[in-house]
Amino acid sequence: PSTIRTKSRVFKIVTIPGDGIGVDITEAAVAVLQKLAAVSGTFEFEFTEKDWSSKKYQERGYYMPEDGLDQLKKFDAIYFGAVGWPDVPDHISLWGLILPIRNALGQYVNVRPTRVLRGITSPLKDCGPGDLDWVIVRENSEGEYAGHGGTTHGAFSHAIATEVSIFTRVGIERIFRFAFETARSRPRKKLTMVTKSNAQRHGMVLWDKIFTEITKEYPDVETDKMLVDAMTVRMTLHPKTLDTIVATNLHADILSDLAAALSGSIGIAPSSNLDPTREFPSMFEPIHGSAPDIAGKGIANPIGAFWSAAEMVRWLGFTEAADGLMAAIENVTEAEIKTKDLAGASDTKTVTEAVCKEIEK
Amino acid sequence: PSTIRTKSRVFKIVTIPGDGIGVDITEAAVAVLQKLAAVSGTFEFEFTEKDWSSKKYQERGYYMPEDGLDQLKKFDAIYFGAVGWPDVPDHISLWGLILPIRNALGQYVNVRPTRVLRGITSPLKDCGPGDLDWVIVRENSEGEYAGHGGTTHGAFSHAIATEVSIFTRVGIERIFRFAFETARSRPRKKLTMVTKSNAQRHGMVLWDKIFTEITKEYPDVETDKMLVDAMTVRMTLHPKTLDTIVATNLHADILSDLAAALSGSIGIAPSSNLDPTREFPSMFEPIHGSAPDIAGKGIANPIGAFWSAAEMVRWLGFTEAADGLMAAIENVTEAEIKTKDLAGASDTKTVTEAVCKEIEK
Ligand SMILES: CC(C)[C@H](C(=O)O)[C@@H](O)C(=O)O
Ligand SMILES: CC(C)[C@H](C(=O)O)[C@@H](O)C(=O)O
Repeated sequence: PSTIRTKSRVFKIVTIPGDGIGVDITEAAVAVLQKLAAVSGTFEFEFTEKDWSSKKYQERGYYMPEDGLDQLKKFDAIYFGAVGWPDVPDHISLWGLILPIRNALGQYVNVRPTRVLRGITSPLKDCGPGDLDWVIVRENSEGEYAGHGGTTHGAFSHAIATEVSIFTRVGIERIFRFAFETARSRPRKKLTMVTKSNAQRHGMVLWDKIFTEITKEYPDVETDKMLVDAMTVRMTLHPKTLDTIVATNLHADILSDLAAALSGSIGIAPSSNLDPTREFPSMFEPIHGSAPDIAGKGIANPIGAFWSAAEMVRWLGFTEAADGLMAAIENVTEAEIKTKDLAGASDTKTVTEAVCKEIEK
Repeated sequence: PSTIRTKSRVFKIVTIPGDGIGVDITEAAVAVLQKLAAVSGTFEFEFTEKDWSSKKYQERGYYMPEDGLDQLKKFDAIYFGAVGWPDVPDHISLWGLILPIRNALGQYVNVRPTRVLRGITSPLKDCGPGDLDWVIVRENSEGEYAGHGGTTHGAFSHAIATEVSIFTRVGIERIFRFAFETARSRPRKKLTMVTKSNAQRHGMVLWDKIFTEITKEYPDVETDKMLVDAMTVRMTLHPKTLDTIVATNLHADILSDLAAALSGSIGIAPSSNLDPTREFPSMFEPIHGSAPDIAGKGIANPIGAFWSAAEMVRWLGFTEAADGLMAAIENVTEAEIKTKDLAGASDTKTVTEAVCKEIEK
């Protein structure tokens, strides 16, 4: 033939829509990713869907089949909707699906960028785009989510239960190195490390100690330390002073929800569960949950899902396409095509179509 | 004599100014309490000061003498400034002074009221006095602050450290009962219970279980449950929907700092460490810390200290005097006599004198 067509790379993506609005927003994200691939011409996606959900759990007694984790390993990336449903206790659903994936696939980093997008209003006075631009690096494999602990004398008046947080040097060093690399890659090169080492004298003090060591490897990164309680004050009253943030599994879980709220809505916030060694596929999910109250109504905010999709595209190596998707998203929010949680009047489909149209431009 | 003077009751108060601005604001609180007593005519205070501080620790190697806790038991109440100083690791200072007092004196409740005072500006849009009016009831004796945990292989690359949270039925039941009583005493009679029981399957699930039980004892109190991460979103985006809040030691530590920030400044927030059995003296302290950067400059915000003093007066049984002190405080903030953290230009002394003058009115 007279024209040579460069062959585009095909990525195998497994989607797990899960529960509630996870289903709505995964569908929306897939549509946007297809459009992005078509326009880019340099990559393609082949989607496989897994119907692992609370509904299935109630039918058959498990979330994932026994070889579930092995099935996932065959893909280039995992796109996750949400898990959690009123009929199943949350600790069953989460330990049945999302937490084992994070743990077994070596996804020891959870990255949560937050900023005030164009057209979106922060609940804070005087806080527009540019005034709040953070990346929260969350330890994703140990700490408060290590899964240790138990209950003794459960049925008696002297019942006692424990939650045991585990911190290892291996786990701490690797999350700090990732956080420093992230900070280094950003214009301001600032890293704030969060602990509660005044009250928690073992794991948290080990965090402090190892942070001091690793800091020496990155003389070009400016660092400071905060206690997790005081950190909420700084985020609320002095958002401009923060850039990259590193915190434990639980602390960053709390701070990243606060960050999402301060940037306008939990519905816009993305997260990437990364295995930086790239031995296993990484997983991308919006940080909002299954939102049973609005599930199936077609009104869920898909922005967090699109932003997560953009981070997946970035992780797969297509920076320009990822930036293009983010620009498309912000053009749409700026045009006031927004869902109800953002004080708009559009439904999921309208926002999705608007983003697809922007991608085509 | 021809006039009969009703004898006023004398309360023995021990003050522990501690470190940094703890010294400035304790002095201010004592002045205000003296004035309040003089005006009331029904109670008097006899103050005894303990110079237990980080400075003393550096000189003599301990914060409290061996019989320190026993010394405190002889008083009617404890007024605490702040502890923590850059030269001493925080986990040494806090476990040397404030935490053992909370634990040994049976102060199993920490009450943290928050509201937007007249004349104070919330960082949130559309949030004036009345829009944010909460009481956070913090479990103060176990949980993440139980002091358990340790480090193994500390010097090696396979180092591991743990933080162990302990939850007991006794501890959980009593904090819930206190929280329900608090909710019941407020006009809206609403209690929100916070956990992270989706990720933490033992202690947090025991919280859930016991909450369901105790709820039945208080049919007149409306309840709901939140996960701690989502709670930060609700506090930020829907402050009006909350009233009384109960949470674990660490969760409430974080949420109460956020609450203080949302109501304007960490400098205004009070706390009461209570032994509801009244076997031991309770302790009152502002929630801000020692603030080394502004220590000794005479510019610390004394409002958190005055509010804590008001809570002490209330605990000792003088509701009217406590309300009077709160009114005096709010008259002063409304008159824009405020410190720098509240965008004012007054120093500690000016604010203190203004509050004393208001008390006289
Ligand atoms: C669903 C839950 C287990 C999860 C977490 O706590 O990690 C969620 O809150 C999140 O932030 O991703
Ligand atoms: C100083 C510190 C130990 C303390 C705590 O975490 O309890 C403080 O943050 C508080 O909130 O009273």
